[in-house]
Amino acid sequence: MELLEKRILEDGKVLSGDVIKVDSFLNQSIDTKLTDELASEWARLFEGEGITKVLTIEASGIAIAAITALKLGVPMVYAKKRKSVPSSDNTYSTKVVSYTHGISYNVTVDKPLISSGDKVLIVDDFLANGSALRALISIVEAAGAKVVGCGIAIEKAFLRGGDNIRKRGYRIESLAKIKSVSSDGKIEFC
Amino acid sequence: MELLEKRILEDGKVLSGDVIKVDSFLNQSIDTKLTDELASEWARLFEGEGITKVLTIEASGIAIAAITALKLGVPMVYAKKRKSVPSSDNTYSTKVVSYTHGISYNVTVDKPLISSGDKVLIVDDFLANGSALRALISIVEAAGAKVVGCGIAIEKAFLRGGDNIRKRGYRIESLAKIKSVSSDGKIEFC
Repeated sequence: MELLEKRILEDGKVLSGDVIKVDSFLNQSIDTKLTDELASEWARLFEGEGITKVLTIEASGIAIAAITALKLGVPMVYAKKRKSVPSSDNTYSTKVVSYTHGISYNVTVDKPLISSGDKVLIVDDFLANGSALRALISIVEAAGAKVVGCGIAIEKAFLRGGDNIRKRGYRIESLAKIKSVSSDGKIEFC
Repeated sequence: MELLEKRILEDGKVLSGDVIKVDSFLNQSIDTKLTDELASEWARLFEGEGITKVLTIEASGIAIAAITALKLGVPMVYAKKRKSVPSSDNTYSTKVVSYTHGISYNVTVDKPLISSGDKVLIVDDFLANGSALRALISIVEAAGAKVVGCGIAIEKAFLRGGDNIRKRGYRIESLAKIKSVSSDGKIEFC
Protein backbone atom coordinates (compact mmCIF):
# COMPACT_ATOMS: atom_id res chain seq x y z
CA MET A 1 0.00 0.00 0.00
CA GLU A 2 1.74 3.08 -1.34
CA LEU A 3 0.20 5.47 1.21
CA LEU A 4 1.68 3.54 4.14
CA GLU A 5 5.07 2.92 2.51
CA LYS A 6 5.39 6.65 1.74
CA ARG A 7 4.57 7.54 5.35
CA ILE A 8 7.10 5.03 6.72
CA LEU A 9 9.82 6.59 4.55
CA GLU A 10 8.80 10.12 5.57
CA ASP A 11 8.18 9.71 9.30
CA GLY A 12 9.59 6.32 10.36
CA LYS A 13 12.92 6.21 12.17
CA VAL A 14 15.34 3.29 11.96
CA LEU A 15 16.96 2.64 15.33
CA SER A 16 19.85 0.29 16.17
CA GLY A 17 19.53 -3.10 14.52
CA ASP A 18 16.42 -3.18 12.38
CA VAL A 19 13.99 -1.62 14.86
CA ILE A 20 11.69 0.78 12.98
CA LYS A 21 10.06 3.43 15.14
CA VAL A 22 6.65 4.58 13.86
CA ASP A 23 5.52 6.19 17.12
CA SER A 24 4.59 9.45 15.42
CA PHE A 25 1.77 7.99 13.29
CA LEU A 26 1.10 4.30 14.00
CA ASN A 27 2.02 3.51 17.62
CA GLN A 28 1.99 5.87 20.59
CA SER A 29 0.54 8.55 18.34
CA ILE A 30 -2.06 7.32 15.86
CA ASP A 31 -2.91 9.11 12.62
CA THR A 32 -6.57 8.11 12.64
CA LYS A 33 -7.13 9.10 8.99
CA LEU A 34 -4.25 6.89 7.83
CA THR A 35 -5.49 4.09 10.09
CA ASP A 36 -8.96 4.43 8.58
CA GLU A 37 -7.38 3.90 5.15
CA LEU A 38 -5.61 0.75 6.39
CA ALA A 39 -8.94 -0.47 7.80
CA SER A 40 -10.69 0.17 4.45
CA GLU A 41 -8.01 -1.83 2.65
CA TRP A 42 -8.37 -4.83 4.99
CA ALA A 43 -12.18 -4.58 4.70
CA ARG A 44 -11.79 -4.76 0.90
CA LEU A 45 -9.27 -7.62 0.99
CA PHE A 46 -11.34 -9.75 3.39
CA GLU A 47 -14.75 -8.86 1.93
CA GLY A 48 -17.23 -11.73 1.98
CA GLU A 49 -15.33 -13.67 4.64
CA GLY A 50 -18.06 -13.11 7.24
CA ILE A 51 -15.71 -11.79 9.92
CA THR A 52 -17.38 -11.69 13.37
CA LYS A 53 -14.51 -10.39 15.50
CA VAL A 54 -11.16 -8.57 15.30
CA LEU A 55 -8.40 -9.74 17.65
CA THR A 56 -5.18 -7.92 18.50
CA ILE A 57 -2.64 -7.67 21.33
CA GLU A 58 -2.02 -4.77 23.73
CA ALA A 59 -1.01 -2.05 23.54
CA SER A 60 0.17 -0.87 20.11
CA GLY A 61 -2.28 -2.99 18.10
CA ILE A 62 -5.42 -1.75 19.85
CA ALA A 63 -6.06 1.53 18.00
CA ILE A 64 -5.61 -0.02 14.55
CA ALA A 65 -7.74 -3.03 15.48
CA ALA A 66 -10.51 -0.84 16.98
CA ILE A 67 -10.83 1.30 13.86
CA THR A 68 -10.75 -1.83 11.64
CA ALA A 69 -13.45 -3.51 13.75
CA LEU A 70 -15.57 -0.34 13.58
CA LYS A 71 -15.24 -0.37 9.77
CA LEU A 72 -16.26 -4.06 9.66
CA GLY A 73 -19.14 -3.49 12.13
CA VAL A 74 -17.90 -6.15 14.58
CA PRO A 75 -16.46 -6.16 18.14
CA MET A 76 -12.74 -5.97 18.87
CA VAL A 77 -10.93 -8.04 21.49
CA TYR A 78 -7.37 -7.49 22.67
CA ALA A 79 -5.09 -10.07 24.25
CA LYS A 80 -3.28 -8.99 27.40
CA LYS A 81 0.42 -9.42 28.11
CA ARG A 82 1.16 -10.89 31.53
CA LYS A 83 4.31 -12.00 33.30
CA SER A 84 2.55 -14.99 34.82
CA VAL A 85 -0.83 -16.66 34.51
CA PRO A 86 -2.65 -17.98 37.61
CA SER A 87 -3.32 -21.68 37.04
CA SER A 88 -6.98 -21.28 37.99
CA ASP A 89 -7.47 -18.49 35.48
CA ASN A 90 -10.40 -18.68 33.09
CA THR A 91 -8.19 -17.60 30.19
CA TYR A 92 -6.56 -18.90 27.04
CA SER A 93 -2.82 -18.36 27.40
CA THR A 94 0.32 -18.78 25.24
CA LYS A 95 3.95 -17.82 25.80
CA VAL A 96 5.64 -15.32 23.46
CA VAL A 97 9.19 -14.04 23.00
CA SER A 98 9.30 -10.44 21.76
CA TYR A 99 11.66 -9.91 18.82
CA THR A 100 11.99 -6.18 19.47
CA HIS A 101 12.44 -6.26 23.24
CA GLY A 102 14.00 -9.73 23.74
CA ILE A 103 11.74 -10.58 26.68
CA SER A 104 9.19 -13.35 27.14
CA TYR A 105 5.64 -12.95 28.39
CA ASN A 106 2.26 -14.68 28.36
CA VAL A 107 -0.51 -13.67 25.97
CA THR A 108 -3.96 -14.17 27.49
CA VAL A 109 -7.60 -13.75 26.47
CA ASP A 110 -10.54 -14.32 28.82
CA LYS A 111 -12.36 -17.43 27.57
CA PRO A 112 -15.87 -15.90 27.26
CA LEU A 113 -14.55 -13.29 24.79
CA ILE A 114 -14.03 -15.73 21.86
CA SER A 115 -16.72 -18.24 20.88
CA SER A 116 -16.45 -21.40 18.82
CA GLY A 117 -18.55 -19.87 16.04
CA ASP A 118 -16.34 -16.79 15.63
CA LYS A 119 -14.58 -15.96 12.36
CA VAL A 120 -11.63 -13.91 13.51
CA LEU A 121 -9.47 -11.36 11.71
CA ILE A 122 -6.21 -10.85 13.61
CA VAL A 123 -4.82 -7.30 13.27
CA ASP A 124 -1.45 -6.00 14.43
CA ASP A 125 0.93 -3.15 13.72
CA PHE A 126 4.09 -5.21 13.18
CA LEU A 127 4.98 -8.73 12.09
CA ALA A 128 8.61 -9.61 12.81
CA ASN A 129 9.48 -13.20 13.79
CA GLY A 130 5.78 -14.02 14.06
CA SER A 131 5.82 -15.07 17.71
CA ALA A 132 2.91 -12.82 18.76
CA LEU A 133 0.89 -13.76 15.67
CA ARG A 134 1.40 -17.50 16.29
CA ALA A 135 0.21 -16.98 19.88
CA LEU A 136 -2.95 -15.18 18.74
CA ILE A 137 -3.66 -17.90 16.15
CA SER A 138 -3.28 -20.62 18.79
CA ILE A 139 -5.67 -18.78 21.13
CA VAL A 140 -8.34 -18.44 18.41
CA GLU A 141 -8.03 -22.14 17.60
CA ALA A 142 -8.04 -23.16 21.28
CA ALA A 143 -11.45 -21.43 21.44
CA GLY A 144 -12.63 -23.55 18.50
CA ALA A 145 -12.99 -20.41 16.36
CA LYS A 146 -11.67 -19.86 12.81
CA VAL A 147 -8.79 -17.59 11.82
CA VAL A 148 -10.07 -15.88 8.65
CA GLY A 149 -6.74 -14.14 8.16
CA CYS A 150 -4.26 -11.61 9.50
CA GLY A 151 -4.10 -7.90 8.68
CA ILE A 152 -0.63 -6.54 9.38
CA ALA A 153 0.43 -2.92 8.89
CA ILE A 154 4.20 -3.47 8.60
CA GLU A 155 5.82 -6.85 7.92
CA LYS A 156 9.58 -7.28 8.27
CA ALA A 157 9.60 -9.77 5.38
CA PHE A 158 13.36 -10.38 5.68
CA LEU A 159 12.77 -12.17 9.00
CA ARG A 160 10.58 -14.83 7.30
CA GLY A 161 8.15 -14.95 10.26
CA GLY A 162 5.20 -14.16 8.00
CA ASP A 163 6.19 -16.68 5.31
CA ASN A 164 6.52 -19.45 7.87
CA ILE A 165 2.94 -18.77 9.00
CA ARG A 166 1.69 -18.52 5.38
CA LYS A 167 3.23 -21.97 4.73
CA ARG A 168 0.92 -23.35 7.42
CA GLY A 169 -2.03 -22.16 5.29
CA TYR A 170 -2.91 -18.84 6.93
CA ARG A 171 -3.68 -15.76 4.87
CA ILE A 172 -1.65 -12.69 5.87
CA GLU A 173 -2.29 -9.32 4.23
CA SER A 174 0.57 -6.96 5.09
CA LEU A 175 0.13 -3.43 3.81
CA ALA A 176 3.86 -2.57 3.85
CA LYS A 177 6.39 -5.39 3.42
CA ILE A 178 9.95 -4.47 4.19
CA LYS A 179 12.55 -6.31 2.12
CA SER A 180 15.61 -4.91 3.86
CA VAL A 181 16.94 -2.25 6.22
CA SER A 182 20.51 -1.21 5.37
CA SER A 183 23.16 -0.46 8.00
CA ASP A 184 22.73 3.28 7.32
CA GLY A 185 18.97 3.04 7.97
CA LYS A 186 17.65 2.88 4.40
CA ILE A 187 14.38 0.97 4.07
CA GLU A 188 13.58 -1.05 0.94
CA PHE A 189 10.11 -2.49 0.32
CA CYS A 190 9.28 -5.80 -1.42
CA MET B 1 -26.33 8.59 28.46
CA GLU B 2 -29.13 6.04 28.66
CA LEU B 3 -27.60 3.64 26.13
CA LEU B 4 -24.44 3.21 28.20
CA GLU B 5 -26.24 3.03 31.58
CA LYS B 6 -28.54 0.31 30.19
CA ARG B 7 -25.56 -1.67 28.92
CA ILE B 8 -23.73 -1.40 32.26
CA LEU B 9 -26.80 -2.78 34.06
CA GLU B 10 -27.18 -5.58 31.50
CA ASP B 11 -23.58 -6.71 30.99
CA GLY B 12 -21.46 -5.11 33.74
CA LYS B 13 -20.39 -7.22 36.70
CA VAL B 14 -19.77 -5.86 40.17
CA LEU B 15 -16.77 -7.55 41.78
CA SER B 16 -15.53 -7.28 45.37
CA GLY B 17 -15.57 -3.74 46.73
CA ASP B 18 -16.87 -1.42 44.04
CA VAL B 19 -14.88 -2.75 41.07
CA ILE B 20 -17.17 -2.81 38.02
CA LYS B 21 -16.07 -5.20 35.28
CA VAL B 22 -17.10 -4.09 31.79
CA ASP B 23 -14.68 -6.36 29.92
CA SER B 24 -17.38 -7.76 27.68
CA PHE B 25 -18.18 -4.46 25.91
CA LEU B 26 -15.87 -1.61 26.97
CA ASN B 27 -12.49 -3.01 28.01
CA GLN B 28 -10.82 -6.20 26.79
CA SER B 29 -13.70 -6.67 24.36
CA ILE B 30 -14.94 -3.49 22.71
CA ASP B 31 -18.43 -3.07 21.27
CA THR B 32 -17.35 -0.75 18.46
CA LYS B 33 -20.93 0.36 17.65
CA LEU B 34 -21.53 1.41 21.26
CA THR B 35 -18.12 3.11 21.33
CA ASP B 36 -19.00 4.97 18.15
CA GLU B 37 -22.11 6.29 19.93
CA LEU B 38 -20.00 7.45 22.88
CA ALA B 39 -17.65 9.18 20.41
CA SER B 40 -20.58 10.93 18.71
CA GLU B 41 -21.81 12.19 22.06
CA TRP B 42 -18.41 13.65 23.01
CA ALA B 43 -18.10 15.17 19.52
CA ARG B 44 -21.49 16.87 20.10
CA LEU B 45 -20.64 18.03 23.64
CA PHE B 46 -17.25 19.47 22.66
CA GLU B 47 -18.33 20.88 19.28
CA GLY B 48 -16.64 24.16 18.36
CA GLU B 49 -13.79 23.66 20.85
CA GLY B 50 -11.23 23.20 18.05
CA ILE B 51 -9.83 19.95 19.44
CA THR B 52 -6.52 19.02 17.77
CA LYS B 53 -5.65 15.82 19.65
CA VAL B 54 -7.17 13.08 21.82
CA LEU B 55 -5.07 11.77 24.71
CA THR B 56 -5.64 8.59 26.72
CA ILE B 57 -3.67 6.05 28.76
CA GLU B 58 -2.86 2.43 27.90
CA ALA B 59 -4.37 -0.04 27.59
CA SER B 60 -8.11 0.08 28.23
CA GLY B 61 -8.57 3.69 27.10
CA ILE B 62 -6.99 3.24 23.66
CA ALA B 63 -9.90 1.76 21.67
CA ILE B 64 -12.41 4.36 22.91
CA ALA B 65 -9.94 7.20 22.35
CA ALA B 66 -9.04 5.97 18.84
CA ILE B 67 -12.66 5.83 17.70
CA THR B 68 -13.33 9.26 19.27
CA ALA B 69 -10.28 10.77 17.54
CA LEU B 70 -11.39 9.25 14.23
CA LYS B 71 -14.82 10.85 14.69
CA LEU B 72 -13.19 14.24 15.45
CA GLY B 73 -10.73 13.88 12.54
CA VAL B 74 -7.67 14.35 14.76
CA PRO B 75 -4.74 12.14 15.89
CA MET B 76 -4.81 10.07 19.09
CA VAL B 77 -1.93 9.75 21.54
CA TYR B 78 -1.73 7.30 24.40
CA ALA B 79 0.37 7.64 27.55
CA LYS B 80 2.39 4.60 28.55
CA LYS B 81 2.57 3.05 32.01
CA ARG B 82 6.09 2.35 33.19
CA LYS B 83 7.57 1.08 36.43
CA SER B 84 10.50 3.49 36.15
CA VAL B 85 11.52 6.34 33.89
CA PRO B 86 15.15 6.75 32.77
CA SER B 87 16.31 10.21 33.88
CA SER B 88 17.62 10.99 30.40
CA ASP B 89 14.30 10.14 28.79
CA ASN B 90 12.78 12.62 26.37
CA THR B 91 9.35 12.16 27.97
CA TYR B 92 6.82 13.93 30.15
CA SER B 93 6.26 11.77 33.21
CA THR B 94 3.97 11.77 36.27
CA LYS B 95 3.43 9.23 39.04
CA VAL B 96 0.01 7.62 39.51
CA VAL B 97 -1.57 5.34 42.11
CA SER B 98 -4.20 3.02 40.62
CA TYR B 99 -7.46 2.95 42.61
CA THR B 100 -8.51 -0.41 41.18
CA HIS B 101 -5.20 -2.24 41.48
CA GLY B 102 -3.58 -0.40 44.40
CA ILE B 103 -0.18 -0.12 42.67
CA SER B 104 1.82 2.91 41.63
CA TYR B 105 3.38 3.52 38.23
CA ASN B 106 4.67 6.32 36.01
CA VAL B 107 2.60 7.76 33.19
CA THR B 108 4.77 8.92 30.29
CA VAL B 109 4.32 10.58 26.89
CA ASP B 110 7.16 11.20 24.45
CA LYS B 111 7.68 14.96 24.29
CA PRO B 112 7.37 15.39 20.50
CA LEU B 113 3.85 13.91 20.56
CA ILE B 114 2.16 16.92 22.24
CA SER B 115 2.82 20.48 21.04
CA SER B 116 2.26 23.77 22.80
CA GLY B 117 -0.49 24.71 20.31
CA ASP B 118 -2.52 21.56 20.92
CA LYS B 119 -6.09 21.66 22.23
CA VAL B 120 -6.44 18.28 23.90
CA LEU B 121 -9.50 16.18 24.74
CA ILE B 122 -8.59 13.55 27.33
CA VAL B 123 -10.61 10.34 26.97
CA ASP B 124 -10.71 7.36 29.33
CA ASP B 125 -12.97 4.44 30.18
CA PHE B 126 -13.13 4.99 33.96
CA LEU B 127 -12.78 7.88 36.39
CA ALA B 128 -12.40 6.72 40.00
CA ASN B 129 -10.20 8.72 42.37
CA GLY B 130 -8.94 10.81 39.43
CA SER B 131 -5.26 9.95 39.78
CA ALA B 132 -4.77 8.93 36.13
CA LEU B 133 -6.76 11.92 34.89
CA ARG B 134 -4.74 14.36 37.01
CA ALA B 135 -1.54 12.82 35.58
CA LEU B 136 -2.76 13.26 31.99
CA ILE B 137 -3.81 16.87 32.70
CA SER B 138 -0.38 17.65 34.16
CA ILE B 139 1.35 16.15 31.11
CA VAL B 140 -0.75 18.24 28.68
CA GLU B 141 0.03 21.38 30.67
CA ALA B 142 3.73 20.52 30.98
CA ALA B 143 3.74 20.51 27.16
CA GLY B 144 2.22 24.01 27.18
CA ALA B 145 -0.94 22.66 25.53
CA LYS B 146 -4.55 23.30 26.58
CA VAL B 147 -6.90 20.76 28.16
CA VAL B 148 -10.21 21.37 26.37
CA GLY B 149 -11.95 18.82 28.57
CA CYS B 150 -12.25 15.19 29.56
CA GLY B 151 -14.56 12.57 28.05
CA ILE B 152 -15.13 9.74 30.50
CA ALA B 153 -17.27 6.67 29.83
CA ILE B 154 -17.96 5.65 33.46
CA GLU B 155 -17.43 7.94 36.46
CA LYS B 156 -17.60 6.56 39.98
CA ALA B 157 -19.12 9.78 41.23
CA PHE B 158 -19.27 8.56 44.86
CA LEU B 159 -15.46 8.70 45.01
CA ARG B 160 -15.46 12.48 44.33
CA GLY B 161 -12.34 12.25 42.10
CA GLY B 162 -14.18 13.90 39.22
CA ASP B 163 -15.70 16.68 41.33
CA ASN B 164 -12.30 17.55 42.78
CA ILE B 165 -10.96 18.02 39.25
CA ARG B 166 -14.08 19.99 38.18
CA LYS B 167 -13.47 22.33 41.14
CA ARG B 168 -10.08 23.15 39.59
CA GLY B 169 -11.96 24.43 36.52
CA TYR B 170 -11.75 21.47 34.17
CA ARG B 171 -14.74 20.31 32.17
CA ILE B 172 -15.50 16.60 32.54
CA GLU B 173 -18.26 14.96 30.50
CA SER B 174 -18.97 11.52 31.95
CA LEU B 175 -21.54 9.51 29.99
CA ALA B 176 -22.50 7.26 32.93
CA LYS B 177 -22.15 8.61 36.46
CA ILE B 178 -22.48 6.02 39.19
CA LYS B 179 -24.01 7.32 42.42
CA SER B 180 -23.58 4.14 44.45
CA VAL B 181 -22.84 0.43 44.34
CA SER B 182 -24.64 -1.51 47.07
CA SER B 183 -23.10 -4.39 48.99
CA ASP B 184 -25.20 -6.84 46.96
CA GLY B 185 -23.86 -5.38 43.67
CA LYS B 186 -26.73 -3.08 42.71
CA ILE B 187 -25.65 -0.05 40.68
CA GLU B 188 -27.46 3.28 41.00
CA PHE B 189 -26.79 6.15 38.59
CA CYS B 190 -26.80 9.88 39.40
